[in-house]
Amino acid sequence: MPIHQIAVGSHEELRQSGTLKAALAEFICTLIFVFAGQGSGMAFNKLSADGTATPAGLISASIAHAFGLFVAVSVGANISGGHVNPAVTFGAFVGGNITLFRGILYIVAQLLGSTVACFLLEFATGGMSTGAFALSAGVSVWNAFVFEIVMTFGLVYTVYATAVDPKKGDLGVIAPIAIGFIVGANILAGGAFTGASMNPAVSFGPALVSWTWTHQWVYWAGPLVGGGIAGVVYELIFINHSHEPLPSGDF
Amino acid sequence: MPIHQIAVGSHEELRQSGTLKAALAEFICTLIFVFAGQGSGMAFNKLSADGTATPAGLISASIAHAFGLFVAVSVGANISGGHVNPAVTFGAFVGGNITLFRGILYIVAQLLGSTVACFLLEFATGGMSTGAFALSAGVSVWNAFVFEIVMTFGLVYTVYATAVDPKKGDLGVIAPIAIGFIVGANILAGGAFTGASMNPAVSFGPALVSWTWTHQWVYWAGPLVGGGIAGVVYELIFINHSHEPLPSGDF
Amino acid sequence: MPIHQIAVGSHEELRQSGTLKAALAEFICTLIFVFAGQGSGMAFNKLSADGTATPAGLISASIAHAFGLFVAVSVGANISGGHVNPAVTFGAFVGGNITLFRGILYIVAQLLGSTVACFLLEFATGGMSTGAFALSAGVSVWNAFVFEIVMTFGLVYTVYATAVDPKKGDLGVIAPIAIGFIVGANILAGGAFTGASMNPAVSFGPALVSWTWTHQWVYWAGPLVGGGIAGVVYELIFINHSHEPLPSGDF
Amino acid sequence: MPIHQIAVGSHEELRQSGTLKAALAEFICTLIFVFAGQGSGMAFNKLSADGTATPAGLISASIAHAFGLFVAVSVGANISGGHVNPAVTFGAFVGGNITLFRGILYIVAQLLGSTVACFLLEFATGGMSTGAFALSAGVSVWNAFVFEIVMTFGLVYTVYATAVDPKKGDLGVIAPIAIGFIVGANILAGGAFTGASMNPAVSFGPALVSWTWTHQWVYWAGPLVGGGIAGVVYELIFINHSHEPLPSGDF
Repeated sequence: MPIHQIAVGSHEELRQSGTLKAALAEFICTLIFVFAGQGSGMAFNKLSADGTATPAGLISASIAHAFGLFVAVSVGANISGGHVNPAVTFGAFVGGNITLFRGILYIVAQLLGSTVACFLLEFATGGMSTGAFALSAGVSVWNAFVFEIVMTFGLVYTVYATAVDPKKGDLGVIAPIAIGFIVGANILAGGAFTGASMNPAVSFGPALVSWTWTHQWVYWAGPLVGGGIAGVVYELIFINHSHEPLPSGDF
Repeated sequence: MPIHQIAVGSHEELRQSGTLKAALAEFICTLIFVFAGQGSGMAFNKLSADGTATPAGLISASIAHAFGLFVAVSVGANISGGHVNPAVTFGAFVGGNITLFRGILYIVAQLLGSTVACFLLEFATGGMSTGAFALSAGVSVWNAFVFEIVMTFGLVYTVYATAVDPKKGDLGVIAPIAIGFIVGANILAGGAFTGASMNPAVSFGPALVSWTWTHQWVYWAGPLVGGGIAGVVYELIFINHSHEPLPSGDF
Repeated sequence: MPIHQIAVGSHEELRQSGTLKAALAEFICTLIFVFAGQGSGMAFNKLSADGTATPAGLISASIAHAFGLFVAVSVGANISGGHVNPAVTFGAFVGGNITLFRGILYIVAQLLGSTVACFLLEFATGGMSTGAFALSAGVSVWNAFVFEIVMTFGLVYTVYATAVDPKKGDLGVIAPIAIGFIVGANILAGGAFTGASMNPAVSFGPALVSWTWTHQWVYWAGPLVGGGIAGVVYELIFINHSHEPLPSGDF
Repeated sequence: MPIHQIAVGSHEELRQSGTLKAALAEFICTLIFVFAGQGSGMAFNKLSADGTATPAGLISASIAHAFGLFVAVSVGANISGGHVNPAVTFGAFVGGNITLFRGILYIVAQLLGSTVACFLLEFATGGMSTGAFALSAGVSVWNAFVFEIVMTFGLVYTVYATAVDPKKGDLGVIAPIAIGFIVGANILAGGAFTGASMNPAVSFGPALVSWTWTHQWVYWAGPLVGGGIAGVVYELIFINHSHEPLPSGDF
C-alpha cells in the first residue's frame, strides 16, 4: 500500500524537512491554535459576570477555533502537514499515511504545544484559570462519547477528502479553510454539551494546567475512535488503491 | 444537449466512482452538514431559558450552516459532486446535468443522512428533541412558499454559476465557499420567518425524528420550485449550448 | 488608453456575452444580494421587540452583506463582471473600464434588482416594511457624506486591486471574498451611523418600496464620489499605463 | 543571504513599483484597515449605553479586524507586499527580507494611514472619541507585554509561513485570509485583556488623536519583540538557506 503524507502543500518539501523540524512545527502551530481558542473562553469568562455559557459565548468560541485552526493548519502544511491534533495524526496512521514513530513524535509535540499555550495564558491573563473541558448538565459520558465521535469523524473525513485524497485537485487550496470551518460548525452544536473538543491536545493542556481530569478519557477516546473510523472508511472506500494503483513517484 | 456533471472538482473521477459510492458520499456529507446545523439549534435551546429566537441564535444558525455546508460540498465534490440537497439534485436534473436514476439515489441518500444525523443528535444531547421547521407568527404558507423559492433560487443559481458553468474558471476553487455562504446569508433573513431550510433533506430529518409534519410540503415545494427555476434559467440563458457548442470530450 | 473589463473571471467570455445578458446577470445578482442583506435587517426587527439597533444586529447585518455580496460578485463575475453596485460601475467608468452605454444599462438593472428584492421581501415577510437607510442621532449629513465616501473608496479600491489590476495574479481567486468582506468590515463601523450603504442600489430599493426619501442623496453622492476617487487614484497611480504599455491582445 | 520580498503576489511587479509608490500603498491599506477596525469599536460604543465590553462587542471587533486586515493585505500585496503593520515590517527586516530605508518609509506610511483614519472617524461619527488601547483591570503591563508578544508571534509566523516561505506553494492564494484570521482569532482572546493590538500602527493612531499615551510602549515593545522572534525563528529554522540555496533569479 502506498504511503501518503497528509499535507496540504508540497509533498517533496515534507520529505526534506527532518522529523524533528516537523515536530517543532506541530508544537508551534498547536500553541498558536490553543492560545487563541482557549484564550477566547477565558476572555468570555472575563467579560461575563458569572461565566454561564450563552449563545454569544458559543459563537465566540466557534470563530476563535475556526479561524485559529485554519491558520494553524496553513502554517504547518508545508513543514509537518499541519495535523495540530492527535486524532488527525491517529487517523493518518490508521489509514497508513504516517509512520508510528513520526506519529508519536507529532502527538507529543501537540500535547506540549497545548500545555505551553495554557501556561502562557495563565500568566498573560493575570492569573486566571484556563478552565477545563466538562460535560453539561444532563449529558452522560456515553452521550458525550458519541458526540465527540461523530464530530471528530466529520473533522478527519474532511482532512482526508480535501488534503489526503489524490483526487483532491483544486480542493487542496481550500483544505485548511474546510478543516478550520468544520470545527467551527461543530462547536456551535457540541459546545453546549461536551465543549466540542474533537482534539485530545486541546483538552489535555487545560486539564494539566488546571489539574482537572474528570472525564478526560472521553476527550481522548471519542476523537480517536471518530478519527480512526474516518481514516479507515475514507481510505478503504474512496481512495481505492486496489483498482487504481498510483505511480509510486507521486508520494 | 451535452450532459454536464455538477461537480466542483474533477469530472473524470466522478465517472470512475460508481453510483453507489457517490450515493454513500451524499449520505455522509449530508449527515455531517445536518449534524452541525440542526445541532446548533439544539445548542441554542440548551443555552437559552425558553428557546425564543434571538439575533444571536440566528447568527449561530447562519454560521453553523454556512461553515457546515461549505465543508459538506467540499468533501463530496470529487466523489458525488457534493449536492447535499434534493433541490440541488432536482435543479441539476431539470438542467439536464444528472440522470433520473442517479438523481433519485442521491435524494434517498440525502434524506437518510439527515435522518441518521437527527437520531445521533437526539442520543448525544441526552434526549433533547431535534425540533422541526415551522412558520413564525404572522407568516402564511404562501409567504413562506415565496421565501423558500427566492432563497433556493439564489442557492441553486450559485451552484450553476460557480460549479456547473463551463466558463466558471477560477471560481471553481471558491465554489464550495459561495454555496455555503449564500445559505448562511439567507438564514440571516429567512431564519426568522420560515426557518430558512432551502433544502428538503434538512427539514425532513427533524420532521421524521420529532414526527412533526405541519407545513412540511412548503419545505419541499418551495426549494424544488426555486431550484428548478434556477436550473432552467441558468442553463437556457447563460450556458447557451446552441450558440457555443462545447467539445464533447470535455464532459 | 486600453479598455479593461472589470471581471473576476475570463475576459474572453465577457465579450461573448451580449450586453443585455450581462444586464440580466446584474439584475439577478443584485436581487440575490439585497434579498439577503435587507432581509437580515427585517429579521432583526422581527426578533427584537422594538428594533433598536444592537451590536448583535450589526454583526448580523455585517455577515449577511459580506456573505451575500461575495456570492453576488462570484455568480456575476463571468457574465457581467459582478459589479452589483452603481458606485462600482461608476468607478469603472471613471477609470475607463466600461463604456457609458453599458454602464447605464448596468445601473438600471441594479436598481431594478434591488427594487424587486424589496417587493419580494415585503410579501414574503407577511407585509413587514423594508425600512430605509437613515442617519443615526448625532450624525449630520456631512458626517454621513464623509463616512460613505471613505467606506466606498475602500470598496472600489479593493475591486481595482483584486479584480481589475493586470498585476492581480492569484488575487483574482479571492477577489469576490475581498469585495464582500470589505463591505462586511465597514458595516461594523458605519452601520451604527449611516447604515453603511456604500451602494446606491442597496439604499434605492428600500427607499422606493417604503417611499422614504430623506437624505437619499447622501447614499448616492457619497458612494459615487468615493468610488470615483478610488477609480481615478488606482488607475493613474498604480496601473500606470504610460510607463508599462500592455499588449493590446490581453484585454 | 538572498533577500526575499514579503509579498503575496508577483515579485517582479514589486521591483517595478517605486519605493514611494509602495509607501503610498501602505498608507492607503492601513487607512482602510484602521477605519473599519477602530470604527467598529466606536460603533459598539454608540450602540451600547455605557460602552462596557461584552462578548458581542468582542465578536464585532474580531470580525471587523479579520475582514479588514484580509482586505488590506490583499489590496497591498502586489504593490508593497501588504505589511499594514510595523511589526510585520520589523519581522521582515530582522529576517533580512526588506532594507532598512524601505522599512522605515513603510512604518511612517503605516502610522500616517492610521492617524488619518482616526481623524476621519472622529469627523464622520459626529465628534466621537476614537478611544485608545488600554489594559483591563487585573492585567499588569508584564501580563500585557507577554500577551502582545505571543499574539504577534503568531501573526508574523503566519506571514512567513504563507507569504514569505519559498515553499509556500498554493498557500499564497490564502495567505491574506490566514493573516486576517489569525488577528481575528487572537482578538477573541486578547481583546478582553490588552485590546489585542498586535500592531503599533493600530494603537498609535487612536493614541495620537485622543492624546492618550498610557502604556503605549507595551503596544510597541510587545509586537516588535513577538514579530522579531517569529522572523528569526522562521528564517533560521524553516527557510534554511544554507542547505538549499535558492537560485538568485527568483527573488
